Amino acid sequence: MENSAAQAFPRSKKVFVHGSINPEVRVPFREIELDPTSAYDGAIVPNEPVRIYDTSGPETSRDITKGIVPLRASWIQGRGDVEEYFGRTIAPIDNGYNSDSQSEHARSKGNLREYPGLRRKPLRAKSGMNVTQMEYARRGIITPEMEFISIRENMGREQATEYVENRHSKRNILNQQHPGQRFGAGIPQYITPEFVRSEIAAGRAIIPANINHPELEPMIIGRNFLVKINANIGNSAVASSIEDEVEKLLWATKWGADTVMDLSTGKNIHETREWIIRNSPVPIGTVPIYQALEKVNGKAEELTWEIFRDTLIEQAEQGVDYFTIHAGVLLRYVPLTANRMTGIVSRGGSILAKWCLAHHTENFLYTNFEEICDIMKAYDVSFSLGDGLRPGSIADANDDAQLGELATLGELTKIAWKHNCQVMIEGPGHVPMQLIKENMDLELDQCNEAPFYTLGPLVTDIAPGYDHITSAIGAAMIGWFGCAMLCYVTPKEHLGLPNKQDVKDGVIAYKIAAHAADLAKGHPGAQVRDNALSKARFEFRWEDQFNLSLDPETAREYHDETLPQEGAKTVHFCSMCGPNFCSMKITEDVRKYAIEVGISEEEALAKGLKEKSDEFLKTGAEIYSA
Amino acid sequence: MENSAAQAFPRSKKVFVHGSINPEVRVPFREIELDPTSAYDGAIVPNEPVRIYDTSGPETSRDITKGIVPLRASWIQGRGDVEEYFGRTIAPIDNGYNSDSQSEHARSKGNLREYPGLRRKPLRAKSGMNVTQMEYARRGIITPEMEFISIRENMGREQATEYVENRHSKRNILNQQHPGQRFGAGIPQYITPEFVRSEIAAGRAIIPANINHPELEPMIIGRNFLVKINANIGNSAVASSIEDEVEKLLWATKWGADTVMDLSTGKNIHETREWIIRNSPVPIGTVPIYQALEKVNGKAEELTWEIFRDTLIEQAEQGVDYFTIHAGVLLRYVPLTANRMTGIVSRGGSILAKWCLAHHTENFLYTNFEEICDIMKAYDVSFSLGDGLRPGSIADANDDAQLGELATLGELTKIAWKHNCQVMIEGPGHVPMQLIKENMDLELDQCNEAPFYTLGPLVTDIAPGYDHITSAIGAAMIGWFGCAMLCYVTPKEHLGLPNKQDVKDGVIAYKIAAHAADLAKGHPGAQVRDNALSKARFEFRWEDQFNLSLDPETAREYHDETLPQEGAKTVHFCSMCGPNFCSMKITEDVRKYAIEVGISEEEALAKGLKEKSDEFLKTGAEIYSA
Repeated sequence: MENSAAQAFPRSKKVFVHGSINPEVRVPFREIELDPTSAYDGAIVPNEPVRIYDTSGPETSRDITKGIVPLRASWIQGRGDVEEYFGRTIAPIDNGYNSDSQSEHARSKGNLREYPGLRRKPLRAKSGMNVTQMEYARRGIITPEMEFISIRENMGREQATEYVENRHSKRNILNQQHPGQRFGAGIPQYITPEFVRSEIAAGRAIIPANINHPELEPMIIGRNFLVKINANIGNSAVASSIEDEVEKLLWATKWGADTVMDLSTGKNIHETREWIIRNSPVPIGTVPIYQALEKVNGKAEELTWEIFRDTLIEQAEQGVDYFTIHAGVLLRYVPLTANRMTGIVSRGGSILAKWCLAHHTENFLYTNFEEICDIMKAYDVSFSLGDGLRPGSIADANDDAQLGELATLGELTKIAWKHNCQVMIEGPGHVPMQLIKENMDLELDQCNEAPFYTLGPLVTDIAPGYDHITSAIGAAMIGWFGCAMLCYVTPKEHLGLPNKQDVKDGVIAYKIAAHAADLAKGHPGAQVRDNALSKARFEFRWEDQFNLSLDPETAREYHDETLPQEGAKTVHFCSMCGPNFCSMKITEDVRKYAIEVGISEEEALAKGLKEKSDEFLKTGAEIYSA
Repeated sequence: MENSAAQAFPRSKKVFVHGSINPEVRVPFREIELDPTSAYDGAIVPNEPVRIYDTSGPETSRDITKGIVPLRASWIQGRGDVEEYFGRTIAPIDNGYNSDSQSEHARSKGNLREYPGLRRKPLRAKSGMNVTQMEYARRGIITPEMEFISIRENMGREQATEYVENRHSKRNILNQQHPGQRFGAGIPQYITPEFVRSEIAAGRAIIPANINHPELEPMIIGRNFLVKINANIGNSAVASSIEDEVEKLLWATKWGADTVMDLSTGKNIHETREWIIRNSPVPIGTVPIYQALEKVNGKAEELTWEIFRDTLIEQAEQGVDYFTIHAGVLLRYVPLTANRMTGIVSRGGSILAKWCLAHHTENFLYTNFEEICDIMKAYDVSFSLGDGLRPGSIADANDDAQLGELATLGELTKIAWKHNCQVMIEGPGHVPMQLIKENMDLELDQCNEAPFYTLGPLVTDIAPGYDHITSAIGAAMIGWFGCAMLCYVTPKEHLGLPNKQDVKDGVIAYKIAAHAADLAKGHPGAQVRDNALSKARFEFRWEDQFNLSLDPETAREYHDETLPQEGAKTVHFCSMCGPNFCSMKITEDVRKYAIEVGISEEEALAKGLKEKSDEFLKTGAEIYSA
C-alpha cells in the first residue's frame, strides 16, 4: 500500500542510543545516509549521516491486532508503587449503546469490534502513593523516562558540541524574543537527565505517560525543549471506522506527530480508543467530556459529576496520557461571550456553558477539581487545562472571556501542582499576529510557566480550506515565543472531517512551524538538518535533498514532474533554469576564484566599508535637493 | 474550462467607484452578495455585501489575441509630456534566435508566435521631460493614477468610518511593532489622493506604471498601504509555451496577484512578454539581465553595457513596469560569499558576479547607474533593486555579503531619487524567524524607507515541496513589520517549474500572508472580510462562508466531501460534529440566556475579578509548599 504508514523513508534506518544511568533505556532515531561530496579537485568527501527525532514507533510493519511492545512496563513495575486491579466493567454505554442487545447488534454488523489483543489488567497507584513524573522529579528521582527524553532531545549527541550553525549566532541570541529567557535559564547546549528532572519539578514541562500506556516512547512538552506537535483524529456521528482511526494514528506518527488526541464523538468510542492506545508509540490525549456527553445521549444538562468521574477512570484504565479538562469555564464568564462575533466555539466549552446555565450552578469540573487531581495522580494522567472560552474569530481574540478563563486556569494549575499533578494549558485559536505574543506572555505570567499548548493560532479568518497555512503562521510565531506544543489544524478545519491526506498536510505544516520555532529559539542541533539539506542542494545531491526533507516522496515527485529522467537527479543543474543558466553552477566558479585570489573576508570587508563611507560623504547630504 | 482564469467567483459582481477629481477614474471592486441572517425571533436581517480588492482585470471572458482596454491611455497623453516614436526594430536575437532564418523556422513550427493584436508605437518622455509618478508627486500633482489608488486602497469606502473590528483595538495599537510607526505617520484611517501623492513624493511608496502599459489598473507598493503580492511566471529552456504563460498570468491575477514578474529565460522571450503585457491588468516586472544573457548565448562574460542598455529600451518600449537591477553586486562583495553554505543563489547575482570576476572590473550596472536612471524616467519604469547576494539558506542569513549589498542599494536609491525615479528594494530569501525583523529595520534605515519587496522569506530549509508554507510564515511576519510587497513562492520552489495548480497554491498562501499582515498593521477595513466570514460561519450561512473565502471552490468541495447533500449547506449544524453536538448551536442558547438574564459585561467582569482576587489571596502563597 503505497500510501501506508508502514512505508519506510528512503535511505533511512533506525538507530538506537542506550542510556548510561539505565541500560534498558534505548532511544530510537531515524538516521539518513548521505552521498559524499564531489569536490572540485576530484576528491570524494563523505557526509555524516543525519539523525532525526523519530516518532514513528518501534516497527515499520505492524499487526495492529496485537499492539506494540510495552517498552516501559518494567520501569513502571520497578518503582514498586503500582498495583494491578480488576478495574471497571465495560458497559454497553461506554461504546454509546444503551443495552447489551444494542451492543450485540453492533458487534454482529462489524461496527463494534473489541480489541483482540492483550487485555492487561489496569494498574493504579498503591494506596497513598502518587505515581506522577512530577512526584518523582520533586523527590529528586531521575526516572528512565527522563533519561530517555534527555537522549532524545539531544538528537543522540553524546555531549555538548559546537555546531557550525548560523555564523551570526551571537547576534541571534541577542535578538531573541523568546520569553523563556525572561524566566528561567533557557535552553541549555546539552540536555542532561537532571535538566529534564528539574524542569518537570518546576512545572515548566510535562511527560504525559499514563502507567497504563507502557507502549509509549517517552517525550516531553516544555518550552526549553523541542517544540512538539499534536494531531487530532477520531470518528464522529457522521463518518469513519476503527480501522480508519488506527491508520490515521500510524500515519500521523509516521509524519512526525508527537502526540495524538482521539476526539471521537460517535459510537464505539471505548473500543476505538483501545485499538489506538495499544498501537500508539506517542502519548494519547482525549477530551473526556465528549464521551460523558455520549453517555447522556448528547444532553448536556443531564451530565453529572458521577458520570464524568466514571469516564475519567474508564479512560485512565485504558491508558490515556492527558485529559483536556475545561474546569475554567466558570458560570460568571459565560455571559461575557454573548456579544462575541462567534460566541463559544470550543465543543467542551459549549457543553459546560450549557450545563452551568441549565443548573445555575458552578462548573462541576471546577468544584470537583481536587478529586480529579486524585484520579490523575493515581495513573499519571496529565492535565491539559482546556480553553473552553477561546476566541473563534479574529474579532474575539484576547477578550475578557478568554483572559478571565486563563486566570482561572492559572489558579487551577497551582491546585494541581499541590498534588504533584502534571499540567499544561490550552490556548487559542484565532489571533491576529500583533496579539500573539500577549497570549504567550499572559500565559507564562498567569499560569506560572506551565507549558502552553495552542491550537494554531489562525492569523486570519478568510481562508477556509487553507487553515493549515493560516494557523501554521501563528503556530510558528507562538512556538518561537515559548509555546511548548502546537495542535495541528488540517485543511478541512471548519469544513469537514480530515482524511488521510489532510492529516498528512496538517502534520507537515506543523512540523514546519515547530522546526522554525526551534531554529528561532536557538535549540542546539536544530539547524543541523537545514544545513545538511542546504549543502546537498548546493552540491546538486538531489537524492540527499529529497531524503533530508520532511516529505521525500513529494519532493521527488515535484522534481520529476519537470525533469523525470533519472539522469536529471545526478547532473549539476537544476530543473528551474536549465543546463546553461544555473546560479549554483556559477557560484562554484566564484568559490574557485576566491580561493585563487586568496582574498580574506576581513580585507574585503574593510576595503568595502571604507569605499562605502567615502561615497556616502560625497553624495549623502544632497539626496532631497534634486 | 472549469479551471480557467475566466471563471467568475460565485455570487460576485464587479462594481465601480468613480473618482471625484477625475471622473474618468473608475475603480473596480468585486462585491460579494450575502444571505440575510435569520434571527432568533424569526426576523430576517440583511447582511451588507462585502467589497473585495480586485486584481482580475476588466473582463471575465477575454480574447487574449486582442488584449485589454488601455485604461490609462488618455491620462498619459493628457499630461502632454510624451511622444510617439518608431522604437527599436525587433531582431531575431530578441527572441533568442541568431538569424532571420532561425526565427522563420520557429515561426513555421508555431513556437514563435508574434502577438496578433494592436502594435502601438512606443511612447517616451519628450526631450528634457520626466514622466515618473514621483516627478509628478514632487511637483505637487495628483495624477489620475493616484486618485485611482486612493479609492482602491479604501476598498470603496467613501470616507473614514468607524469599523466594528477587534474590540481591543486600542490595545492592538499599543502592541504594534510595525516599524512604519517609528518613521512616519503610519496608516491613516482614510487614504486620500493627497496621502498617496505625499508617500510617492517621499519615496515611501511606488506606483509601477510604464507609459507603454496603459492597460494596467494602477496600484501602489508601500508600507502604509495594503500589503501586495507578486507572482512569478515565465518559460524556461526546458519547458512551457506562450499560451501557458498568458494563462498563468490570468490565473494568478484571478486569485489575487498584485503584480506579475515574467522571468522567462528560454526562446521567444520578446513575444511571450508582448502577449503578457497586452493582457495584463497588473504591473509586469522583469529581470532584464536574463534576456541580455540569452543574447550572448548564456555566456555571462560576454555581456556588455550596450547589450544590456538595448535590452532595457526594448522592454521599456513594450511596457514593462519595473526592472530588477542587480546594481548592488559589487566586485568587493563577491568573495564574501565564498565560504557561504549556499554561495550566490540569485540568478542575476550569479551572472553579475561571474561577469565582475571575468573582467576584474566593477559591475557595469553600478558604473552606469545614472544612465539607467535616464532610461527609467523616460518611460516611468520603476527600479526594483535586486538582492543578488541574498542568502540561500538559513545558515547564510543576514551575513556580511547580504548586508554589504543592502547598504549599496541604499546608496543607489538616493541616486535614483535625484532623478525622481521610483525605487523598491528586493530582500531575502531564507531567514530564521528571529532575524526577520532585523532585515526590515536595516532596510528602512539604510534604504531611506524605500519600499521593501521580499521573497518569502523561508523560515526553514527542511521542507522542499512545501516552501509556499515555510515562506508564507516569514512573509506574514515581514509584512507586519513593514514589508510592502511579498514575492510568492510556490510548492515547486527548489524542485521544478510551477504549473497552474502551483501558481494558485502560491498566490493563495501569499494572500493569506499579506492579509494577516494587513490585520496586524491595523489597516482600516482589512478586518471587514474576516468579520463577515466569521459571522457567516457562526450563523451557519455555509454558502456565504464559502463565497467570502479566498477560494470558494475549494471550501465548498471540502465541505461536500463530508456532507455532500445540498441540504447540509442550509441546516444549523456543521460537518465536524454532527447534528446533536455542535458548539455553535449551543452558543445560540448561551446568547439567549445572557439576554434573558440581562447581566451586563461590566457587572460580570467586576464580580469575576473580585472573586478571583479573593481566591488568589487564599491559595496563592502556598503553591510550592506542597
